[in-house]
Amino acid sequence: VQGLYLIGGSGNVATTVAVGLAALRRGLAEPIGLVTELPLLAGADLTDLGDIALGGCDLREADVIERARRLARVDRVLSERLVEDVAGELERYAAAIRPGVAAGPAGVPGTAAALDAVRDELRGFASQHGLSRAVAINLASTEAPWDEPLPDDAAGLRRHIERGGQLPASTLYAMACLDLGWGYINFTPSLGSSLPALDEIAAQRSAVHGGRDGKTGQTLVKTVLAPVFAARNLRVLSWFGQNILGNEDGRTLADPDARRSKQRSKGETLPQLLGYRPAQQVDISYVPPLGDWKVAWDHVLFEGFLGTRMSLQLTWEGADSALAAPLVIDLARLCDRALRRGERGLLSYLAMFFKEPMGVSEQGHERQVALLARHLASAAEPVP
Amino acid sequence: VQGLYLIGGSGNVATTVAVGLAALRRGLAEPIGLVTELPLLAGADLTDLGDIALGGCDLREADVIERARRLARVDRVLSERLVEDVAGELERYAAAIRPGVAAGPAGVPGTAAALDAVRDELRGFASQHGLSRAVAINLASTEAPWDEPLPDDAAGLRRHIERGGQLPASTLYAMACLDLGWGYINFTPSLGSSLPALDEIAAQRSAVHGGRDGKTGQTLVKTVLAPVFAARNLRVLSWFGQNILGNEDGRTLADPDARRSKQRSKGETLPQLLGYRPAQQVDISYVPPLGDWKVAWDHVLFEGFLGTRMSLQLTWEGADSALAAPLVIDLARLCDRALRRGERGLLSYLAMFFKEPMGVSEQGHERQVALLARHLASAAEPVP
Amino acid sequence: VQGLYLIGGSGNVATTVAVGLAALRRGLAEPIGLVTELPLLAGADLTDLGDIALGGCDLREADVIERARRLARVDRVLSERLVEDVAGELERYAAAIRPGVAAGPAGVPGTAAALDAVRDELRGFASQHGLSRAVAINLASTEAPWDEPLPDDAAGLRRHIERGGQLPASTLYAMACLDLGWGYINFTPSLGSSLPALDEIAAQRSAVHGGRDGKTGQTLVKTVLAPVFAARNLRVLSWFGQNILGNEDGRTLADPDARRSKQRSKGETLPQLLGYRPAQQVDISYVPPLGDWKVAWDHVLFEGFLGTRMSLQLTWEGADSALAAPLVIDLARLCDRALRRGERGLLSYLAMFFKEPMGVSEQGHERQVALLARHLASAAEPVP
Amino acid sequence: VQGLYLIGGSGNVATTVAVGLAALRRGLAEPIGLVTELPLLAGADLTDLGDIALGGCDLREADVIERARRLARVDRVLSERLVEDVAGELERYAAAIRPGVAAGPAGVPGTAAALDAVRDELRGFASQHGLSRAVAINLASTEAPWDEPLPDDAAGLRRHIERGGQLPASTLYAMACLDLGWGYINFTPSLGSSLPALDEIAAQRSAVHGGRDGKTGQTLVKTVLAPVFAARNLRVLSWFGQNILGNEDGRTLADPDARRSKQRSKGETLPQLLGYRPAQQVDISYVPPLGDWKVAWDHVLFEGFLGTRMSLQLTWEGADSALAAPLVIDLARLCDRALRRGERGLLSYLAMFFKEPMGVSEQGHERQVALLARHLASAAEPVP
Repeated sequence: VQGLYLIGGSGNVATTVAVGLAALRRGLAEPIGLVTELPLLAGADLTDLGDIALGGCDLREADVIERARRLARVDRVLSERLVEDVAGELERYAAAIRPGVAAGPAGVPGTAAALDAVRDELRGFASQHGLSRAVAINLASTEAPWDEPLPDDAAGLRRHIERGGQLPASTLYAMACLDLGWGYINFTPSLGSSLPALDEIAAQRSAVHGGRDGKTGQTLVKTVLAPVFAARNLRVLSWFGQNILGNEDGRTLADPDARRSKQRSKGETLPQLLGYRPAQQVDISYVPPLGDWKVAWDHVLFEGFLGTRMSLQLTWEGADSALAAPLVIDLARLCDRALRRGERGLLSYLAMFFKEPMGVSEQGHERQVALLARHLASAAEPVP
Repeated sequence: VQGLYLIGGSGNVATTVAVGLAALRRGLAEPIGLVTELPLLAGADLTDLGDIALGGCDLREADVIERARRLARVDRVLSERLVEDVAGELERYAAAIRPGVAAGPAGVPGTAAALDAVRDELRGFASQHGLSRAVAINLASTEAPWDEPLPDDAAGLRRHIERGGQLPASTLYAMACLDLGWGYINFTPSLGSSLPALDEIAAQRSAVHGGRDGKTGQTLVKTVLAPVFAARNLRVLSWFGQNILGNEDGRTLADPDARRSKQRSKGETLPQLLGYRPAQQVDISYVPPLGDWKVAWDHVLFEGFLGTRMSLQLTWEGADSALAAPLVIDLARLCDRALRRGERGLLSYLAMFFKEPMGVSEQGHERQVALLARHLASAAEPVP
Repeated sequence: VQGLYLIGGSGNVATTVAVGLAALRRGLAEPIGLVTELPLLAGADLTDLGDIALGGCDLREADVIERARRLARVDRVLSERLVEDVAGELERYAAAIRPGVAAGPAGVPGTAAALDAVRDELRGFASQHGLSRAVAINLASTEAPWDEPLPDDAAGLRRHIERGGQLPASTLYAMACLDLGWGYINFTPSLGSSLPALDEIAAQRSAVHGGRDGKTGQTLVKTVLAPVFAARNLRVLSWFGQNILGNEDGRTLADPDARRSKQRSKGETLPQLLGYRPAQQVDISYVPPLGDWKVAWDHVLFEGFLGTRMSLQLTWEGADSALAAPLVIDLARLCDRALRRGERGLLSYLAMFFKEPMGVSEQGHERQVALLARHLASAAEPVP
Repeated sequence: VQGLYLIGGSGNVATTVAVGLAALRRGLAEPIGLVTELPLLAGADLTDLGDIALGGCDLREADVIERARRLARVDRVLSERLVEDVAGELERYAAAIRPGVAAGPAGVPGTAAALDAVRDELRGFASQHGLSRAVAINLASTEAPWDEPLPDDAAGLRRHIERGGQLPASTLYAMACLDLGWGYINFTPSLGSSLPALDEIAAQRSAVHGGRDGKTGQTLVKTVLAPVFAARNLRVLSWFGQNILGNEDGRTLADPDARRSKQRSKGETLPQLLGYRPAQQVDISYVPPLGDWKVAWDHVLFEGFLGTRMSLQLTWEGADSALAAPLVIDLARLCDRALRRGERGLLSYLAMFFKEPMGVSEQGHERQVALLARHLASAAEPVP
């Protein structure tokens, strides 16, 4: 058994993870969308899908079952019947969701106390399932970029907290996890564990971490298309991307500050893949009736032989939660495997799952897949 | 100096090759679209772009200059001014184009005589430029699939010809080239050199060959997108592709027989990349007002987590000739390099250029690029 | 109470009509998509939505409830809960569906006997509901075009039948309806009542009829877009339309003969609206995984000022049954109203509902809407 | 002969008007895109296309010929040869362009003096061509919305100016034109003549005016598509529109203030056509490599029968100048006709040419066309 603790545990993605794990455990669904169920990972010593104990926290009310029904009836992302079939599991999961601890500017009792509270909460989840540690994944709403400097080393960061210095909530949770020797994955563009100080703590405590910002749709496609222009020596003149979406993520991103985090995370992909910086823009707009669906339109203008201008357009229509949820399960399994094998620190070989992969500059999806495959192959030998 | 002989030398692609080589030689254009000008191939010992002597043959009238002007004024693929700037070179190229030899059912004097005539014509081109051999590239209209069996070995094929047996024109030209120790590239879906007997001849005569069907647009994009569905364990339910185009290639493909050749060449890509056979269809329609432009629409329906159905749509708008011409120049240079280095037989490492690569089953574009890169790296050492 | 008899009563459209009428009657759905619920038709003396008695026939097994569940679970066109809520009504409707009578080349007992059988069956439906007449709507699979000549007048057509001459099934049913003084609507591209002889019979028997081929999606959009090019003096060079769909209609249209009927019905729209004949093509492809969904892609190339070429692309994604079903209900109500008011013969003012409107050449959607509005306004006075 | 004075006379649209009038006069182009050349307007007593004398003013340098060449060579909107063929006319037009007078916050000598200067300049243009009056069309860059109140009546506006009050430049030019009894058309979303006070002046001086914001592309298509959803009782849930463009208009609109003007002008269309206010957004992004091309993507989500959600997507690719220029010529001719017939005040029957038609609320394109047709028909009788 392994533990999976979802920060932002009442949202659409977490709800879909809960529905999915219950459905997979009971054989009501096929493991479509799970990278860890590919033949490539067949012998990789991963927890069984039925052996993942779920918990989490959320600042919002834990309306998991209502949310699942809305995803089925209104958004038509889930099957209504499937949701009813697993309603019991959803109730139990909802009951286990604890109130989240806010931090940063809106934080209440002081950062040190908040950190203690989070650690207690995490320890409680683990011991409840008879585990010494678990994996936590950040699925909470995107935070505004954190513009204040934070100390670069573990000791400095601890002093900062003792002196009442503030931290974004995502980083507070990351620190609590790593302090406890857990795995921590940042599936959002928030700061999370992207600090040298947290990497140091991970190494000290035999914890592992990775991120950030799950690569679910438009960026995924971009990271396979851009290399083709490079390989053919076609010059990309402009790449314009528009995303429209209607879920809470969209509402959060309607806030220009939060959007800034997201756009940064989407903006460095092309220059890395092309070797130059074309005119580019990534817009995100909140269109409430779309619900959990995201439609992404890309327009690429490129120059070919003798100055001829050509174009590629792409429309991606995907259900955000259904795209993200299986990756969350994948990351939980890979992270737990790493803990069991005694890996520590940053799991940079998880780059294929992220828009802004930590620890590697490679953005090409196929080369990122090869990175994971090489790691799993090399790690087939027992860790000393 | 190397020689490049274009079969179908009066068509749009050949005309664009002629305009392009003249423009590059005189510094009027940048080498956009040329794979052989990428840093990856910097030290690869390729002929200078200014040192390629051009010739060719065509069954049609050699109206190269009118065609270039039409590509500029009507199709707006080329610049009108550029065409006038290189009008002198185009006139000279047009004057050098020889009448093509038809073969197969429409052939006249008997296959053996036709083969002799082609060999003489090719020898003439080489000696005119003081060369012992050259590279020929087939750019002629797509032939109907050749359904009659042909002998599998070189001796059998020669007997077949002596007895008056027929061959498709593309194969007749391929045989003439390989007999003379030239390079031969089949840029079309016609039969060309795709026969074991011709591979044998190539080995005997220290000739090289490759093909078939240049991968210029829709298939190129498909060969990078399909692997992403596989890598993410998303199940492609259907992949529907529609091409509309207005040039002679389109008119030829309005003929159901010729279309059959093309569709075959486009149809095996997905099963190889996905590992299963989704519902798929590739349609090609002739829409004359599009001229040299090709618009390709792809609709991909796929199943994600918990049965959720999502879709990807893609519209590619490209000028066929401007996409194909630089690849023709690339292939000419790589083929000439192979001849100079003493390679012989099938150049399977050219797979990235073709829809139906000969000698390799790999369809993934990125892995095909790696194949070429590895060959060039390994071949950096002098050939014994 | 009015009667509505669905020919092809077990198909997706008929099933959706049955689900919809039950849902509307019980207040479980809003009348979205119903033209007859627009304010424009407020005082038009139409049957209440709750007062429509449903029946029908089909050559296939009457698996209405399974079909409704599939439309909900697999196609996600209907809500699963809604289908269960109206399951009782669906069972009753399914039980009332009678075996259809085939005709034409596959017909069995002779056309005259078949006609008698159909008339008996129709009379039975009416009397079961205490009605003297009803409206029948043809929703059956598209027939191949009928290439044999048929007599132009009623007497001739009756002689043809007495002599054992054949008729397409759609025309056989149309004749039975009109003979009985019913309303008959041909929602398909089959021949149906599109014969002068049937129009004569309608006039004789105070019956009404209309058609043909419901205008649900791509053609609807085309009939509003084409006039804009005309009004702006922009020259349409080519209009290419591709439809991909996965339901039984799609399977039928995979047959080239049936497709010919459909393409004819889609092909005359543009010349009528533009005043000239651009390069045009309408393709239809069967892509089974799409189920009841139809995706239509249109590419319009047009020439603007000083020869500049521009384009418009359009992708329409609609659920075929959900688009067609409310129009079927609209037509039933308008047809019943016409019968009650003593109208007779062809109801050409229904043109806005059809791809190939009978009795009018006008294809512009907005002008067709005005035609209906004018009729309803003029007919506000009591019929003498 | 009639006079046409272009405010913003050095821009892309004005340049294309100049190229077009020269080409039409010399028979080098067909009158594609000109509404006034439709049979509908055949007897409408319009100036010959060869009899329009062109002048204008601009704040920028009058680089008309360089601009025309760039539109040909880089943007491939015009033909390179055509530009050279009319180079003489372009030189003469460029020489006639006078420095524009700025106004509003950046204005220099005081509004009254500026108004005098503009009137003098306009009088000079007319007398140079032996005319007593002419038509001026505003093609200058979009101004920021004018938020300060301006007097509602002519006398008040004159006092405002005498006291040194400011006006947007577009309104200053409009006032100068109307004072002189000219025609004035506002082809931009700037304020222009959209003031009751200017309408009063027009009536006093027998001047005519109209506007505002030329309806060239995306909005044109929207005004024919939205009515179809209304006519079919389909509920539009959201309509998202994105425009990307690369010309000076795009650069101006990259400024949030100017964009506000444009978005206002695009935002009221849907509520008028649908009768309710769906979620809607219109974005405009500046993508420099697109040059004069504008790509507009629309995504419409709508609800059909029984809650089924469907979508329509649309991509419009047009050359801004080639779309606008013929409408400018149309408006010049219709406006001159109105002056000759003694019409005065607002020409609301020109609604079909504008995104924000003055004097009518009707947004449906087809009904706007009918409005023009009715006016021309009724006005066929001589004006008393």
